[in-house]
Amino acid sequence: MALSESVLIERFFRACGAQRADVTLGIGDDAALLSFGAGNDLVAKTDTLVEGVHFPPQSPPASIGHRSLAVNLSDLAAMGARPSWALLALTLPRAEEPWLAEFAAGLGALAREHRVALVGGDTTRGPLTVTVQVLGSVPTGSALRRSGARPGDQLFVSGTPGDAAAGLALEEGRLVAPPGARDYLRERFLLPTPRVALGERLRGFASACIDVSDGLLADAGKLAHASGSGVELSYEQLPLSEALAATLGEERARLLALSGGDDYELCFAVPTAHVAQLQAELPPQDWNYQCIGVLSETRGERVLRAGTVMEFSHSGYQHFA
Amino acid sequence: MALSESVLIERFFRACGAQRADVTLGIGDDAALLSFGAGNDLVAKTDTLVEGVHFPPQSPPASIGHRSLAVNLSDLAAMGARPSWALLALTLPRAEEPWLAEFAAGLGALAREHRVALVGGDTTRGPLTVTVQVLGSVPTGSALRRSGARPGDQLFVSGTPGDAAAGLALEEGRLVAPPGARDYLRERFLLPTPRVALGERLRGFASACIDVSDGLLADAGKLAHASGSGVELSYEQLPLSEALAATLGEERARLLALSGGDDYELCFAVPTAHVAQLQAELPPQDWNYQCIGVLSETRGERVLRAGTVMEFSHSGYQHFA
Repeated sequence: MALSESVLIERFFRACGAQRADVTLGIGDDAALLSFGAGNDLVAKTDTLVEGVHFPPQSPPASIGHRSLAVNLSDLAAMGARPSWALLALTLPRAEEPWLAEFAAGLGALAREHRVALVGGDTTRGPLTVTVQVLGSVPTGSALRRSGARPGDQLFVSGTPGDAAAGLALEEGRLVAPPGARDYLRERFLLPTPRVALGERLRGFASACIDVSDGLLADAGKLAHASGSGVELSYEQLPLSEALAATLGEERARLLALSGGDDYELCFAVPTAHVAQLQAELPPQDWNYQCIGVLSETRGERVLRAGTVMEFSHSGYQHFA
Repeated sequence: MALSESVLIERFFRACGAQRADVTLGIGDDAALLSFGAGNDLVAKTDTLVEGVHFPPQSPPASIGHRSLAVNLSDLAAMGARPSWALLALTLPRAEEPWLAEFAAGLGALAREHRVALVGGDTTRGPLTVTVQVLGSVPTGSALRRSGARPGDQLFVSGTPGDAAAGLALEEGRLVAPPGARDYLRERFLLPTPRVALGERLRGFASACIDVSDGLLADAGKLAHASGSGVELSYEQLPLSEALAATLGEERARLLALSGGDDYELCFAVPTAHVAQLQAELPPQDWNYQCIGVLSETRGERVLRAGTVMEFSHSGYQHFA
């Protein structure tokens, strides 16, 4: 697109509707916060997957169903919210029963895992496009936002970013991987794990949180920008899966961990004074997260390697070109 | 599609997610009712418009923006709910500023008219598809549903159904109309009026309510079916706009009033004992609604003309073929 999504939203949609006092947090974070009384904020999010854009044509229907919900649950996780309900807007060229059954099975399994009820939706005819909206709740005043981090806060990420981008490249035949790594990496793309429980537990620890969907470096940069800070990531501390390292070698794997998309992990900042308690209550080896850097006074995002700033172009899938 | 939407939903999605006690009303009515404490139910709805399916290619962007919100507001109106917030999932082939500005203006004007805040969304690249989700509230226990009507209840409709279908036919060049009628009918398709205030006021009067989107006869039939009743419509009592009668003649106009889609009027049942009070508090000439029939013990939907049942095929746009 000629306009970036952020510019487009800012220019056309931020001030588009009415202004309401019960909108605690509107456009611009991972999800909206809405005041509905009773000690909880309502948390609402919608995300769309388009065939050929967000997943390859002929993707397994169960994966499309799973991912359409997962990407939204991940945004609620990034707010520290507990999901409750979902609506599904499904546009598809034709109603084929086996496809629908597999799609619903994929969506339904993830929904039940998180106790999310599917409460409505719309099915229409057209090019395959799946929009899910998720509603959840968070105790009033306790939601995690992208803003809130301060210089000196430590930055963490869950899981092993880069795996999903490699999985997509495998799906599209742009990459080959050793047999043992191949299935693991494909699954990280096809069936990502929204970190809902981690997000909820991070309330009270994290000063800011974002989900990693566009690439770790870019999303860490968004968190830092929203917090009025910069961020320094440590190249050596980036977590890598064995499968990714075995497939790409360590050097390319670390670059993909920085730039790959579709991970749906959480990136969060924690004030140094709270880190020990975080690690005691949520042991990193059990909860699968790792410190990768620190918020800085200097704006922008930087990657330090052996103490020097890396020259890094924002590249992703072209690693496999 | 090979499967009807209702069959598709019933088969694949009704039991797809988790079952939750806080879902007051799930899939199958105009919108979902969700318990969130504090004396109000949350009301949630999502609806999709696809280019070439729900609006002609090259439709005015302001109309697409208006309609994408209007169709959802209409569903909340049919629940007797007050809308509060909206999220927008916009898929479009390219980001063209004039198009986006007009789209946002159309959506925004209607949103502000109803004090609806746009609180989030997602923009993606792909074939033009607009999914809006609307959230609102209704005092717990007072929502209007499709079920609840009883045989003997009188049936009403707001506005003059059929106008929007004629407007679409004009847009697509399948119909010609006298100059005075043309602009009016086109506007009924391009800028429909969701009956939000009427829906709210009908709480306490109506025993059941549905919005008219698929055609009056079909939607009245859905209300009757959900209520365990049948319905008899009076051919002579169907309200017609002067523009529609002038364009089609009275006979074809009445048929289109029964079968045309996209009206976004309200069709509602009122127990006979409440009709006088309804008409006193909401004068029909001010609120623009009319009695068109009665709920019956005999299942199914029938149209009576001069006391005899009409043979009527469920036809719509082919009137202009």
